[in-house]
Amino acid sequence: MTFDDRTDSSATDPAATADAPTPAAATILVCSSCRGADGADDRPRPGHLLAEAARAANEDAGIRIVEIECLGNCKRRLSAALLCEGAWSYVFGDLAVENGADLVAGAKLFQTSENGLMPWRGRPECLKRGLVSRLPPATAIALAATQKDPS
Amino acid sequence: MTFDDRTDSSATDPAATADAPTPAAATILVCSSCRGADGADDRPRPGHLLAEAARAANEDAGIRIVEIECLGNCKRRLSAALLCEGAWSYVFGDLAVENGADLVAGAKLFQTSENGLMPWRGRPECLKRGLVSRLPPATAIALAATQKDPS
Repeated sequence: MTFDDRTDSSATDPAATADAPTPAAATILVCSSCRGADGADDRPRPGHLLAEAARAANEDAGIRIVEIECLGNCKRRLSAALLCEGAWSYVFGDLAVENGADLVAGAKLFQTSENGLMPWRGRPECLKRGLVSRLPPATAIALAATQKDPS
Repeated sequence: MTFDDRTDSSATDPAATADAPTPAAATILVCSSCRGADGADDRPRPGHLLAEAARAANEDAGIRIVEIECLGNCKRRLSAALLCEGAWSYVFGDLAVENGADLVAGAKLFQTSENGLMPWRGRPECLKRGLVSRLPPATAIALAATQKDPS
């Protein structure tokens, strides 16, 4: 019953990335208000530390990293989202302060997608088991609206 | 430690809605692949039944209702998202097939927002306790990027 998000084909189809266009710009959103596992009101918040770790890992990757006030995923603690132009938007939870490099790796991987989905193969473990939700881009919504609700 | 999302002011500020502009268009996305609590592979899927219930409640509300393949929130079962132009995007879980009218009520309420957040007051109960995640609109990301990461 658990969704494993393996609906992409790009990871197994070399042709899908052979002539890849310029990568779409990816953004990492880190929930700046997330508290740690013990719920303590410590500052800096773990979300800020995670963002700092992502920035340290970013270097030449050119990923935009933004701290944002609450992604609403408080039941699954330290949270971040990965966005990419024209692609699905992903929210992850159960992260650790040490996952900054994983977020950057996931964002770089996401930028190679040609079908709007984050590739499953090569995705850091924390971005496999930590999936909280995903939202489709406007194009996918428009397509689904045509297919499922022609009225 | 639980976030209750009460960061809106419009519910307590009559002036905020006195001269409300034309409501932004709201969309309800219902996860069409969600199974029921028992995990059975029954069809139609509960997600489809929830979408049908929302359509029945929609009537003159003019809300766009779209079934979409998996919102990735499988750990919290029956899921739906509420989107509104220029506003935050909300994902909800732990829904029931009977919550169709609640989704429409939430979408109509959302359309009255003037700060991009879904008002807390007046929100159906299932859209209070079922919050899974929320994602900011591009404008809020751009603003946060300026404030938190001037580089």
